[in-house]
Amino acid sequence: MSEKESSGYRGEAREAIRKAEAETGDMIRITEENEAYEGILIPRSEYGDGKHVVVKLKSGYNIGVRITAGTRIEKIGKGTKPSFAPPPLPQPNEQLPKVAILSTGGTISSRVDYRTGAVRPALTASDLYSVVPELANIARIDAQILSSLFSENIAPAQWTEIAEAIAQKVREGVDGVVVAHGTDTMGYTAAALSFALQNLPVPVIVVGAQRSADRPSSDAATNLVGAATAAAKAPLAHVCVAMHESVSDGSIVLHLGTRVRKCHTSRRDAFKSVNAQPMARVQDKNIVMLTDEYAKRNPSNKLALKSRFSEKATLIKFYPGIDPAVIDWYVDRGYRGLILEGTGLGHVGSRCFESLKKASSRGLVVGMVSQCIWGRVNMNVYDSGRDLQALGVIPLDDLLSETALVKLMWILGQTKDVEDAKRLLKTSIAGELSPRTPVEKGDL
Amino acid sequence: MSEKESSGYRGEAREAIRKAEAETGDMIRITEENEAYEGILIPRSEYGDGKHVVVKLKSGYNIGVRITAGTRIEKIGKGTKPSFAPPPLPQPNEQLPKVAILSTGGTISSRVDYRTGAVRPALTASDLYSVVPELANIARIDAQILSSLFSENIAPAQWTEIAEAIAQKVREGVDGVVVAHGTDTMGYTAAALSFALQNLPVPVIVVGAQRSADRPSSDAATNLVGAATAAAKAPLAHVCVAMHESVSDGSIVLHLGTRVRKCHTSRRDAFKSVNAQPMARVQDKNIVMLTDEYAKRNPSNKLALKSRFSEKATLIKFYPGIDPAVIDWYVDRGYRGLILEGTGLGHVGSRCFESLKKASSRGLVVGMVSQCIWGRVNMNVYDSGRDLQALGVIPLDDLLSETALVKLMWILGQTKDVEDAKRLLKTSIAGELSPRTPVEKGDL
Repeated sequence: MSEKESSGYRGEAREAIRKAEAETGDMIRITEENEAYEGILIPRSEYGDGKHVVVKLKSGYNIGVRITAGTRIEKIGKGTKPSFAPPPLPQPNEQLPKVAILSTGGTISSRVDYRTGAVRPALTASDLYSVVPELANIARIDAQILSSLFSENIAPAQWTEIAEAIAQKVREGVDGVVVAHGTDTMGYTAAALSFALQNLPVPVIVVGAQRSADRPSSDAATNLVGAATAAAKAPLAHVCVAMHESVSDGSIVLHLGTRVRKCHTSRRDAFKSVNAQPMARVQDKNIVMLTDEYAKRNPSNKLALKSRFSEKATLIKFYPGIDPAVIDWYVDRGYRGLILEGTGLGHVGSRCFESLKKASSRGLVVGMVSQCIWGRVNMNVYDSGRDLQALGVIPLDDLLSETALVKLMWILGQTKDVEDAKRLLKTSIAGELSPRTPVEKGDL
Repeated sequence: MSEKESSGYRGEAREAIRKAEAETGDMIRITEENEAYEGILIPRSEYGDGKHVVVKLKSGYNIGVRITAGTRIEKIGKGTKPSFAPPPLPQPNEQLPKVAILSTGGTISSRVDYRTGAVRPALTASDLYSVVPELANIARIDAQILSSLFSENIAPAQWTEIAEAIAQKVREGVDGVVVAHGTDTMGYTAAALSFALQNLPVPVIVVGAQRSADRPSSDAATNLVGAATAAAKAPLAHVCVAMHESVSDGSIVLHLGTRVRKCHTSRRDAFKSVNAQPMARVQDKNIVMLTDEYAKRNPSNKLALKSRFSEKATLIKFYPGIDPAVIDWYVDRGYRGLILEGTGLGHVGSRCFESLKKASSRGLVVGMVSQCIWGRVNMNVYDSGRDLQALGVIPLDDLLSETALVKLMWILGQTKDVEDAKRLLKTSIAGELSPRTPVEKGDL
C-alpha cells in the first residue's frame, strides 16, 4: 500500500489535509472556533466518515476532530522516527533466581509506530529487559522471542509451541517462566498451558499489558516486574496470569490460569478470577499468598508435557432464535466436541434437542457451561436440564466457558476414546472446576 | 413415559430403591454411618451414574447421596399431591393505579411438582396475585397468561407476541405493565421489548425469580411486589428489568432493558446493569431514581409498536482456532446480519478476514462487540481493528453483545436496506449505546 492509500482519508477530511500539505506522521495543529489541538496526524480506516481528522495528542490519546467550514489545519512539523538506544545491559548477579521471559507478542511487547500512530508488535524480548531496568534486581533474565503475534491470531498450534518452549526452559533449570502475551486471548492461552504443563516444578506466569509502553497510563512495566517477581520467588507451581489488581499501580495479582477471564476492554484491572479468588498478590516485590490450596514450587517435580490440542472442538453460544442446523453443520464437518454456552443453570431451547441427540449419537462430546459466567450449571433443577442430560449433554459445574473449550480441545488431543474424554471433561485436572457440593448452597 | 422409565435410576441406586419398595415421589429416609437424610425421592436423569440417589429435602434443596454397602433406604411415606385453595380475591380499590401482569412462564410463575420434585411452569397469573396478597395494596391487578414457557424456549416470535400484548394493555390505559418471565433469557426479551415499544407512555417492568416460590430463599414475591410498585408509580417510561439489588431482600433495582445481563446462574442479584448504572431503586414501596436521564412517564405519549424481528441475524463468539467456514455457512444460508463477539477492543483472528470480506460483500451487516462484556470496543487502536473496519465490520461501542444481536434482529425486521440497517445499528435507539466521546478516557 502506498502512503496515500494507507492514510484512508476521504471527503472533506482529505481535502483539509491536502490543503495543509500534511501527510500522516506529520505534526499538525487543528484550530476550531474555541479550541486548538496539536498532535501527529494518524491514518483513518476505510470506514472513516470523511468528516473527521484523527490526531495522536502528546498525552498518547487519539482524538477525532470534525472538519467544518470554520476548522483550520496547519502542518507544524515533519514526521520523524525516534530511534531507540538501549542502555548497556547490567552485569548479571549470580545470586539471583533465573527467569526465562518468552515473548509471543501483544501490547506488552509492542511499540507504537510514530509515523502512523498504529501499535505494532515489534519490541524484542531484550528490548523488554532494557526498557525495565529494575528486572536486573529481581532475576537473571533469559529472554527469547517466540513470535510477534497479536493474541487474536494465537491458535491451538501456538499453544503447543509456547508449551514446548516453556518445557525446554524448565528442563534447563530456570526458577520460573514469564510468558509475555497479548491480553485479548491471554485467558485462553493460560488455560491451555495449565492443561499442557502438568506436574510443574516452578511457576509459569503469563503477563500482558492493557496500554502500550508509550502511553502515560501504561501498565506494561509494572505488570512485567510483578510477573518476573512471581516467577522468581512465588512459592507456587501453577500457570497463572499476572495483572493489575485495581486501576492503581499498587499491586499485581496472580490468577489461576484456568479460572481467569478478561472482563473489561480497556481497564488495567480487566482480568478477574471467576468462581475463585486470586492465588496471590505481588506488592513491593513481596508475594502474599491468598489461598492455602496450591501446588508448591518443587524443583524435583518432573514436568509432564502434554502439548497436543485438537481444533475439532467448538463453542456455540446459545441465543433466542438460534438455528440448530449449525450444530448439525459441525457434526457433519467431523467435529468431535462441542461446548454449549447455555443460559442460566445450563439450558438451551428445545429446538436444539434433536440436533444435540444426533451429535451425541455420532460420538461428539457435548458439555454445558453458562453464559452467565459466574455461578455453576445445575441441570437437575428443571425438566429441560434433565432432558438435556438424557440427550448426553454433560453439565460442567463451575467451569468457565473459555476454559471448557480449551480443555475439550486438549482432551481431544490426548484421547480418541469418547467415554475417556467425557470422564476427563468432568474431572478437575488443573483446578478448573470444583466438584459439586452434595447440598446446593443458597447463595454460593 | 411410564413411572418406572421416568425414574431414571440404574445400577446400585436402582437396586437400593427397589429393596426399599419406594417410588419417585415417596418420602424416604437414607441412613449412612453418621448421618440420615429425609426427603422426597426424585427422579434421576439418564445421565445418572447409578451410584447416587437424589432426594428433595424439606428445605427445598436437592441432595445426591452416594449408595455404598453401609447405606440404608427406608420408605417412610407415600407420595401425595398437595392441593392449592386460593384465598378469596380482595375487593379492588378504585383509587389505586391499574397494572397489567402478563405471565409468560418461568420460575416466577411456576410451582414445584411435589411428586417428581421437578419445577414446571404451571402457576396462572391469578395464582400469582393470590399468592402475593400485598399486590392488592399496590395496584388494581389485571392478570393474563400469555404462555407457560421456560424462557430458553422464548424466541423472536414470542417477543412479537409479548410486545403486542403489552401494546394492547397500554392502549387500554393501564398505568404500567409487568411481564413475568423466566430469568434465563429475560435480558434478551427486555432488549427486544425496548426496541419494539417506542414512545412508551408508562413503564414496562420485566420480572423473574431465581428461586421458585416453594423454596425458603425464594425471591419471587419480593421481585413481583417491586415490579408492580414500579409499574404503578415509577416516574419513568422505559422497559426495565426489576430484580434484587443484593442477596438480601432489602431492595429491588430497575435496570434499563437494553443494558442488563444475567451475570450469575443462581444468585438473587444475578442481574447487573452493564456499562451503566441501574435506573432506580424500589425500597419499602418507594421509588428512588438513580439517574436524571430517563424518559418521563407521560400518559399522552402515543405508543409506536414496531414488533417485527428477523431470525436471519446470528451471533458468533470468536475463539482461538475457530473455523471461519462457519461464517460462510451463515452467508450461504441467507443470513442478513452477524454480530461478532470478538476479543478485547473488538478483534478476531486474521483467519476470519476472507470470510468477513465475503459476508460484507454479500450484503450482510456485520457488527463487532466484545466478549469482555464490560468496556467499549475501539477498533482504531490496533492494525487488526482498522483492517476489520476496512472489511466492513462496524464497531458497536459499548453495546452489550446480547442486546446487539436482538437489535440487529429487530433492525432486519424493520428495513431491507443495508445502509439503513448499518446506520440504525450505530444509532442509539433505546439507550443501548453511548456515542463515543472524542477523547478516549483512560479507565472507562
